[in-house]
Amino acid sequence: MRSEILEILRRAGDKYISGEEIASRLGVSRTAVWKHIRELREAGYEIVSQSRSGYSLREAPDRLLPSEIQHGLDTQCIGCQIEAHEVVDSTNNVAKQLAAAGAAEGTVVVAEQQDGGKGRLERHFFSPAGKGIWFSVILRPAFLPQEAPKCTLLAAVAVARAMETFGLKAGIKWPNDILYENKKLVGILTEMSAEMDGINYIIIGTGINVNILPEDFPEDIRQTATSLAIMKGEKIPRVRFFQAVLRAMDDLYASVRTGDFEPVMQEWKKYSITLGQEVRVIGVRDGEVFTGRAADIDADGALLVDTADGRRRVLAGDVSIRPRQ
Amino acid sequence: MRSEILEILRRAGDKYISGEEIASRLGVSRTAVWKHIRELREAGYEIVSQSRSGYSLREAPDRLLPSEIQHGLDTQCIGCQIEAHEVVDSTNNVAKQLAAAGAAEGTVVVAEQQDGGKGRLERHFFSPAGKGIWFSVILRPAFLPQEAPKCTLLAAVAVARAMETFGLKAGIKWPNDILYENKKLVGILTEMSAEMDGINYIIIGTGINVNILPEDFPEDIRQTATSLAIMKGEKIPRVRFFQAVLRAMDDLYASVRTGDFEPVMQEWKKYSITLGQEVRVIGVRDGEVFTGRAADIDADGALLVDTADGRRRVLAGDVSIRPRQ
Repeated sequence: MRSEILEILRRAGDKYISGEEIASRLGVSRTAVWKHIRELREAGYEIVSQSRSGYSLREAPDRLLPSEIQHGLDTQCIGCQIEAHEVVDSTNNVAKQLAAAGAAEGTVVVAEQQDGGKGRLERHFFSPAGKGIWFSVILRPAFLPQEAPKCTLLAAVAVARAMETFGLKAGIKWPNDILYENKKLVGILTEMSAEMDGINYIIIGTGINVNILPEDFPEDIRQTATSLAIMKGEKIPRVRFFQAVLRAMDDLYASVRTGDFEPVMQEWKKYSITLGQEVRVIGVRDGEVFTGRAADIDADGALLVDTADGRRRVLAGDVSIRPRQ
Repeated sequence: MRSEILEILRRAGDKYISGEEIASRLGVSRTAVWKHIRELREAGYEIVSQSRSGYSLREAPDRLLPSEIQHGLDTQCIGCQIEAHEVVDSTNNVAKQLAAAGAAEGTVVVAEQQDGGKGRLERHFFSPAGKGIWFSVILRPAFLPQEAPKCTLLAAVAVARAMETFGLKAGIKWPNDILYENKKLVGILTEMSAEMDGINYIIIGTGINVNILPEDFPEDIRQTATSLAIMKGEKIPRVRFFQAVLRAMDDLYASVRTGDFEPVMQEWKKYSITLGQEVRVIGVRDGEVFTGRAADIDADGALLVDTADGRRRVLAGDVSIRPRQ
């Protein structure tokens, strides 16, 4: 109902629409309309009213509300269902529960704040209220589990594309960190439930530092984290940025789900700051360390590193780019 | 308490032990002992009593009770926790919930019957009451998701070893079917929850057709399924067979968890009826069909097939052995 009222107000543009007209169009009482308008105002919508002419929408809040995100989104799959929360422990955990209960492919879970946000390797992920986009997407590709990393690369490319539409040049560090001046802008954590013959579901969790200011970051990550607002020098409208990310994901996934990973791979390479560099790799599980030149990625998203002992294929690991001597 | 009473009766062998002695050893009332004895009898234990001398255990039921399975099991990891059910939809589903809630590695879920037993590729798995061993094991190896198939091969080898201790020669068809006269004895379904950098948990679900008779099988699988009892020509004690499987899993996993997959691979090859054969492979997802000679498996458990166009690596697929012309 609220989104229908919003739609009527939006279509009216600058014109006022009476409560009576809204009530009759939606087949509800004027009191019901008035109650919904009050709730919308409480949710941050600036709706002005004049006693004779009715209501007019002046400004929508930059809050991650399903009605705002879906307004004009126009995607085929990603974001067709959106579940929004004020605070969750982690959107990945909420999405996992939804996925296990049968949620449709493309379902998005987003929160204003995470109080247990997590990154790769059980690291904490700082996710303060109202200053970022913390979200998870449920996918159900007809992949083998071995191909799941493709979705991680896809997510990084989608954010990079969205940045480009806002005039920001993204640099992707393998596999999926997005950096600016060597500080982290975006974190991605992909999780899956799978059998050996196929994937039940993949959850792509993405955290985008949008309007976090330097002083907002806890001290321990102030030297290693940054935000889109810091990069651009001004606040970024979160809803519009989020829409750009979801549209890019939708477009890229349309290829990937049919088995064509080439577009993601090509675009990933375009944004890559890892390829061509001397890198130091630390094995995630065994702690083994080696160095070499990051030569390419392969069709599964693995990083190919040319070392003194030959080419090595890195499926998981911490990769740091070595400063040129 | 029940397992403590059983332990006292077992240690007594053929001798009778008075209710009073049991009560005083365990620090409970004679009435409590009598109630537990009654429950044990209801659970199928044959406990005889004489008015003067007390109780004696004549026979334990061949039921998959934790106390029976754990009695003398002596494993390091697998089976340290056992949860037994009369009927579940599928032991994999129960195990997944336990694993997500933090259950310890090695936890086993077993049921007398599954009413929604499932095999690979969402196929139904026939799991009638009391005639098989339908169980799932929770593992938490420090693997990459790509290595998960190792656990599937491990499970097949464990059952093959257990069969050998019962004088039965197992033939493993890649990756994990155990066949006798080209009919299926055992089905294994491995599922996992993972991030790209590591596995949260693996569930190995195993269904062993133990004492199913030919006429017990539904008509649609009568030509393709068989049982250990049919193979041996007599009933197999389920508890003892299950213990042999859990011990073999425990032994094999002790190597695998430290990164040494070689013992499993060597033993898998010993039992393999696929290697060296002309095979027909149907891709699980794309439906592509090709033929060739099954040459080897690699360190990830993939099947290597030499085709007219060169060697191909099969990670998932339906493999059938072609009769020699």
